[in-house]
Amino acid sequence: MALPSIDTSRLDNTLAVIRTLRDQGPAARIDLGALNGISSATVTSISAELLQQGLINERPPETPRANGRGRPKTLIELDPQAACVVCIKLSINEIQLVVGDFAGQIRHSEHHAISTLTLSAADLEALLEDKISAVCTQQLRGFQRLAGICLAVQGVVSSQSGTIIWSPALSFRNAPIAPRLAERFHCSVLLENDANCIASVLAAQPAYADCNNLVVIMLGYGIGMSVLINGVPYLGANGSAAEFGHSKYQPDGALCACGRRGCIEAYASDYALYREASDLLDLPTGDSAHPSAQQMQALTQLAMQGDPVAQRIYAQAGRALGVGIANVLALFNPDLVLITGSGVRGFDAMQAAMHAAIDDALVAELRGTTRIESCAWDRDMTCMGGIAMALNATDGETLLDSQAKSGSATCL
Amino acid sequence: MALPSIDTSRLDNTLAVIRTLRDQGPAARIDLGALNGISSATVTSISAELLQQGLINERPPETPRANGRGRPKTLIELDPQAACVVCIKLSINEIQLVVGDFAGQIRHSEHHAISTLTLSAADLEALLEDKISAVCTQQLRGFQRLAGICLAVQGVVSSQSGTIIWSPALSFRNAPIAPRLAERFHCSVLLENDANCIASVLAAQPAYADCNNLVVIMLGYGIGMSVLINGVPYLGANGSAAEFGHSKYQPDGALCACGRRGCIEAYASDYALYREASDLLDLPTGDSAHPSAQQMQALTQLAMQGDPVAQRIYAQAGRALGVGIANVLALFNPDLVLITGSGVRGFDAMQAAMHAAIDDALVAELRGTTRIESCAWDRDMTCMGGIAMALNATDGETLLDSQAKSGSATCL
Repeated sequence: MALPSIDTSRLDNTLAVIRTLRDQGPAARIDLGALNGISSATVTSISAELLQQGLINERPPETPRANGRGRPKTLIELDPQAACVVCIKLSINEIQLVVGDFAGQIRHSEHHAISTLTLSAADLEALLEDKISAVCTQQLRGFQRLAGICLAVQGVVSSQSGTIIWSPALSFRNAPIAPRLAERFHCSVLLENDANCIASVLAAQPAYADCNNLVVIMLGYGIGMSVLINGVPYLGANGSAAEFGHSKYQPDGALCACGRRGCIEAYASDYALYREASDLLDLPTGDSAHPSAQQMQALTQLAMQGDPVAQRIYAQAGRALGVGIANVLALFNPDLVLITGSGVRGFDAMQAAMHAAIDDALVAELRGTTRIESCAWDRDMTCMGGIAMALNATDGETLLDSQAKSGSATCL
Repeated sequence: MALPSIDTSRLDNTLAVIRTLRDQGPAARIDLGALNGISSATVTSISAELLQQGLINERPPETPRANGRGRPKTLIELDPQAACVVCIKLSINEIQLVVGDFAGQIRHSEHHAISTLTLSAADLEALLEDKISAVCTQQLRGFQRLAGICLAVQGVVSSQSGTIIWSPALSFRNAPIAPRLAERFHCSVLLENDANCIASVLAAQPAYADCNNLVVIMLGYGIGMSVLINGVPYLGANGSAAEFGHSKYQPDGALCACGRRGCIEAYASDYALYREASDLLDLPTGDSAHPSAQQMQALTQLAMQGDPVAQRIYAQAGRALGVGIANVLALFNPDLVLITGSGVRGFDAMQAAMHAAIDDALVAELRGTTRIESCAWDRDMTCMGGIAMALNATDGETLLDSQAKSGSATCL
């Protein structure tokens, strides 16, 4: 049987309009055309279809402008109820579930304290099925469809096969989790590295839009990295590229959570800092191998207040981070290295030593003009990125589905 | 004035035919069509034009096949005289000039011993002008045009601006050499990192054709690297990416030629090996900071013959190389790491320690399935790569030029 022919340029234009409305909010047809290089006639025709399919709404025209000039424009916006996606962030001892609407806004978020390291692959699968089912039952009323799920995982994942290869949050390896969930929930399931989710949020910000080579480093319990080349995460052969935390500072150096020695993570992650500090400083008791946000806050505060032992520990972490970043500069020569994650709260106590280590390590021509900046961790960008990635990945399906329901089929 | 419209698909097809003839040698029209996904009619029309323009020749049909079946095919081949390119390889204390014909074959090669470190930027420019002029006068008779020049330089270059940023062969920095030579010789001048030239030759070989993420490491006086992502060298923001030699083995470790400490190069390059060895072993005298091929051969031979001191020195180099490669695996997760360059002659004495260091550094999931192989350095691939890159970069111009001369202008 011959497949129906597809007007790909019409489809691309429709997806571009949806994406612009999601990234920039309500917009006038004329502006959508200009932003995407599409004629007014085409935008008018696309928006008529999207209206008919229930994917967008019209806003009543705004009141005339204060200066009285110009006719008020009718704005269109995505119908938030048209579809939703679920993002699950899996990190050590915690699972977060977030529901995002079709406009990309977060509508619900819940955290669960779970001993992730004691789970088997089957346990994790059952647990996620249970939590996703519950959130669907409670939160998804009113939404036309569950378009997709994004699983954002700390560690090495193969996005292509949907397999968690290795995560510090889990004691099992090589679990093909995404296809299982896709079968259970009858929707697309993306599996992403958490740092790639965060980097996708940052890369969309105007301040970083001109960076063709962007490196994002995430400090926290572990140390993650994402390398975006022309906006696309560089994954390598099997998805294990950008494992900055396990590049080396000192051969045969400090013990890392991975079981090897001398990794950057073994000096500059939460657990490495707390391990150094717990014998020497008066800190909250608790699992010092997996320090809580409260424990880390107490340690960071000591360094910020000038405690010399805490300062020495953070400076040592800064040196390790600096040598690691020097290697990243020598190998990737990025436009920008952006340091973020919960651990960035202690960055002020690291950065002098970090910059000194970079300058010690590289001649000026290799240090280059790469900007090295930090980015406050005032909100968790992982789920924001996961929601956006899941929506972008499923817009085509949502469009097809709504066309089928509305009886129109011009786009596909 | 309106520009004439260009039939880009016709042009692309013509360039693809030229490139296939260069890579694979004489071919029948039908095979050229099949290899490039072009119809027979188009290949026939393209080859008629190329014949008229003097860019290809027809070979007399071969004698009928032994089995008597099938009509002998007429083969077409590039006319080697249609154009030529010059590649200059600039390395420490040596300049090599090579002339390549339109079919990509090397027609002439000459070496000059030059104290490159004593040259100013103006000296180098004058010297290259002089040598290129001489080679043009002596060697270029019979060629229809000098299509281009490729300068292959050890170190950091900006291919985009044609500037040598920093080379271990030169004591000056930031010299915009390519635009000067382009003005002098009225042709395109490419400036390339030497490792990228070598990697382009290797990547074209069938054995490595399936590697989307290929890392080539060059051992020799310095240590170079090229990262090919989908066949394209990854250059980074300013062209200084893939500087593997100056990534770190030991912070505050051995002194590197760059002036910093602890670089991989300070352990595994020719000069690093010779520096360690010259006090301890009976080796040919000479400039131990810039050991000659003969000096290195003597040292390598001692290690291969089982001299314990030489073996210890090569094992130490192998460990440093292994830690550096572990970082490359963690950060790039390539399909293949290919080790070559003149220094690969001592690779057998390094590789056990190198593999042990990689396995010590990385857990199996990060070690991944990357193949790590060596490639014999029985011919210098730098100039072969430079010739191919210069030809590929100038085929469009050669085509335009020959169309103008022949009065035909269908392709452009």
